[in-house]
Amino acid sequence: MRNFEYYNPTRIVFGRGSIAKLAELVPAGAKPLLVYGGGSIKRNGVYDQAIAALNGFEVAEFSGIEPNPRFETCMKAVERVAADACDFLLAVGGGSVLDACKFIAAAAKYDGDDPWEILSKWAPVEAATPLGAVLTLPATGSEMNAGSVISRDSTNEKLFFGSDHVRPQFSILDPETTYSLPPIQTANGVIDAFVHVAEQYMTYADANPLHNRQAEAVFRTLIEEGPKALTDPENYDVRANIMWCATNALNDWLSLGVPTDWASHMIGHELTALYGTDHGTSLAIVEPGVWEHQRERKKDKLLQYAARVWDIHEGNDDERISMAIEKTDSFFQSLGIGTRLEDHNIPDEACDLVAKRLADRGVKIGEHSDLGETEVAEILRLRL
Amino acid sequence: MRNFEYYNPTRIVFGRGSIAKLAELVPAGAKPLLVYGGGSIKRNGVYDQAIAALNGFEVAEFSGIEPNPRFETCMKAVERVAADACDFLLAVGGGSVLDACKFIAAAAKYDGDDPWEILSKWAPVEAATPLGAVLTLPATGSEMNAGSVISRDSTNEKLFFGSDHVRPQFSILDPETTYSLPPIQTANGVIDAFVHVAEQYMTYADANPLHNRQAEAVFRTLIEEGPKALTDPENYDVRANIMWCATNALNDWLSLGVPTDWASHMIGHELTALYGTDHGTSLAIVEPGVWEHQRERKKDKLLQYAARVWDIHEGNDDERISMAIEKTDSFFQSLGIGTRLEDHNIPDEACDLVAKRLADRGVKIGEHSDLGETEVAEILRLRL
Repeated sequence: MRNFEYYNPTRIVFGRGSIAKLAELVPAGAKPLLVYGGGSIKRNGVYDQAIAALNGFEVAEFSGIEPNPRFETCMKAVERVAADACDFLLAVGGGSVLDACKFIAAAAKYDGDDPWEILSKWAPVEAATPLGAVLTLPATGSEMNAGSVISRDSTNEKLFFGSDHVRPQFSILDPETTYSLPPIQTANGVIDAFVHVAEQYMTYADANPLHNRQAEAVFRTLIEEGPKALTDPENYDVRANIMWCATNALNDWLSLGVPTDWASHMIGHELTALYGTDHGTSLAIVEPGVWEHQRERKKDKLLQYAARVWDIHEGNDDERISMAIEKTDSFFQSLGIGTRLEDHNIPDEACDLVAKRLADRGVKIGEHSDLGETEVAEILRLRL
Repeated sequence: MRNFEYYNPTRIVFGRGSIAKLAELVPAGAKPLLVYGGGSIKRNGVYDQAIAALNGFEVAEFSGIEPNPRFETCMKAVERVAADACDFLLAVGGGSVLDACKFIAAAAKYDGDDPWEILSKWAPVEAATPLGAVLTLPATGSEMNAGSVISRDSTNEKLFFGSDHVRPQFSILDPETTYSLPPIQTANGVIDAFVHVAEQYMTYADANPLHNRQAEAVFRTLIEEGPKALTDPENYDVRANIMWCATNALNDWLSLGVPTDWASHMIGHELTALYGTDHGTSLAIVEPGVWEHQRERKKDKLLQYAARVWDIHEGNDDERISMAIEKTDSFFQSLGIGTRLEDHNIPDEACDLVAKRLADRGVKIGEHSDLGETEVAEILRLRL
C-alpha cells in the first residue's frame, strides 16, 4: 500500500428536509452570494426552500452557470462578489455550479494578474472565499472534494485545479431534489460516478484489498440502483443511494494508497471542449476504449472486476475480460446513453484531433503516465 | 435511508516513515504533553522517532496509561497539563492512550465540579485541549472518531463519551509500528475492528446497499488479512491493511443512514469492568451470543452476511445462519482468542451480574433498544 494523507473537513448533511438547515450552516452574519444555473431550481422548489431557509441573511444572487462552467461566466461572478461585498458563496445545483463556485472562490482572492493561471499553470491558491453547497445532481463528487473543472470558450480548453481552500464547508444532499432531473442527467450522473470509481480501480494489481472491495461496493450499487432511478424517479431510497454513491465515488477515499488512471477523463474532457459532449456521456464513450486498449496491462483488475462486479466466472481470461467490458458498455447504453462517437455525431477526425491536443500540452496519461498521441488516437478509434 | 450528518476533520497521515511528519503536524510553538502507556513505545523505537521529530518543541511527558484507561490516571495527567502549562496533547500508543487523551483534553477544560460527569452524565464538553496521535495498535478506530471509553476503579464502571472537541487534529498511522505487537494484541485488535463493523451492520434489513457492501468489504478483508498478521508479523501490506480496516471500521462512515446495535459492546464493557477481560476478547465472547439470541430478528442480515462474507449458499435459512455464526466464532478462535466465558475463568454468575448491572443503570440495548436484564443474562448463558 502506498503512503497517503487524507483530510476532508466538509460537513455532509444528508436527507429529506435538509435544506432548512442552511440557516445554521451559513455563518451567522455572512453575506452570501447564491450561485446557480439555468433555473431548474426555481421550477423544482429548491430555490424557494433555500431562500426561505436564508430568511434574515442579505442574499445576493448570480445565475447562469452553464453545464461545463465557463471561465468567462465565473469571472462575471467574481465581479459580483466584489461589487456586492459577498463573503460566502452558496452553490445551489449540480457539479457544474459547485465547480464554478470553487473557481469563483479562488479567483476572488487571487493575488496574481490573471486567475486563469489557477487552471492553466496551477498557480497556488493561497486563499478563497468560503463556500457551501446544496447539491441537486449527484454525479461529480464535487460536494465533498477539493477539485474543480472549468472550461474556456476562447481556447476550447477544459482544465482542472484543486485546493483545500475551496473545499465546501458543508454540502446539503437532499435526494428529493433529484426527483425532477431529466433522465439523461440522471444517467450521465450515474455514469460519471461509475467512471470515477473505475479511474481509481482499473489499473494494476495492488496490495489494498479493502480499497478494491470498497470500489466494487460502489460499482455494484450503481449497477443495481441506476436503472431504477429511470423507471421509478421518485423512489426516495433509490435516489438516496445514487446520491450517496456519487459522493463516495469521488471524495478521494477510493484513491488512498493506490495507483489511479484518469485517462478516460483526460480524453473525455477534450471531447466536451471540442464538441460539447455531456461529461458523463464522454466517459461512457471513452472508458470501454481505454480498457480494451489496455486490456493486457489492466488484466488482473479486469479479471477481478469481471468476477466480483459482474459475476463472470466462465471462459478463459480473454473471454472474461471481453465480457466484462461488454457488460459495462451495455450498462451505460441501458441508461440511454450511446457509447460510440457516431452516436453523438462526433466526426472520425476527433480521434487524431483529441490526441494531438493532449500531445500539444505535453500530457501523457494513464496509470503509467505513458499514453501519448498514438495511443489516445487508437483508443478513440476503438469507439467510432 | 435515514437522514444523517457527517463531519470528520481529522487528518490521516498513513504509511512508512510518517512519524517524522510530527514536526509539521504539531502546531508551531505548542507545548505538547506526550502521553503514552507502559513503555512498549520505548522498546520498539516509536518513542525515539517521536522525540526526534519533535526536536525544537518543549515536550512534557506522561506515561502509565493502562489498557482500559482509568479515570484516576487520566486525572493525574490533567494535573500535569496544568502544572506544565501544556497546550497540546500527543497520544502515542493504541486506542487506550487515544481515549485517555480525549478525556484528559476534555477534563482539562471542564468547567463543572467533577469531570467524571462527562462520562456519567454526558455533561456537555464545551472545549478541549487540542490533540493529535501516533497510532501503534489498530483496533478501536479512536484515531478518526470523536469517542472515548474510560474506566473507573472505585466504581468498576466503564463508560463512553463523545464530542467533536476531542477529535484528533491528526493521526499518524505507520504500519511498521505494529510489527512488534504481541500476537494477542494483534488478535484482539482484529476482533475489535470486526465487531465494530458488525455493530453497524448486523441489525435488520435497511435500504442502504452501498453501506452493506462497504461493511462486507471490511469483514472480508479482516478475515483474509488477520491470520496473516500472526504468521507473518512483519509483512508491511498485511499490517497496513489491518490498520486501515480498523480505521474504516469505526470512523463513523459505516453508521451513516443505518440502524446500529452496540449490544456486544455494552455487555463486553461490563465483563471488562468486572473481570479485566481484554476488550477485543470480551467482544469475541459476547457477539456470537447476541447473534444466536437475536437470530430471528437479525435474520435478513445474517443470511446476507452468510452469503456475501462467508460464501455460504447451501442449506435452509436456519442452517446457513448457524453456519455463519459458527464461522465467525471459529474465525475469532483461529486468532488465538477463546470465545467462551470459561476460557477466561469468568464464573457463571457473571451472566446474572452483568445483566443486573446494566438493568440497574436503566440500560436497554440492541438496535431495538429493548434487550433488558432477562435477555442479557440469556445471551451470556449461551456463552458459558
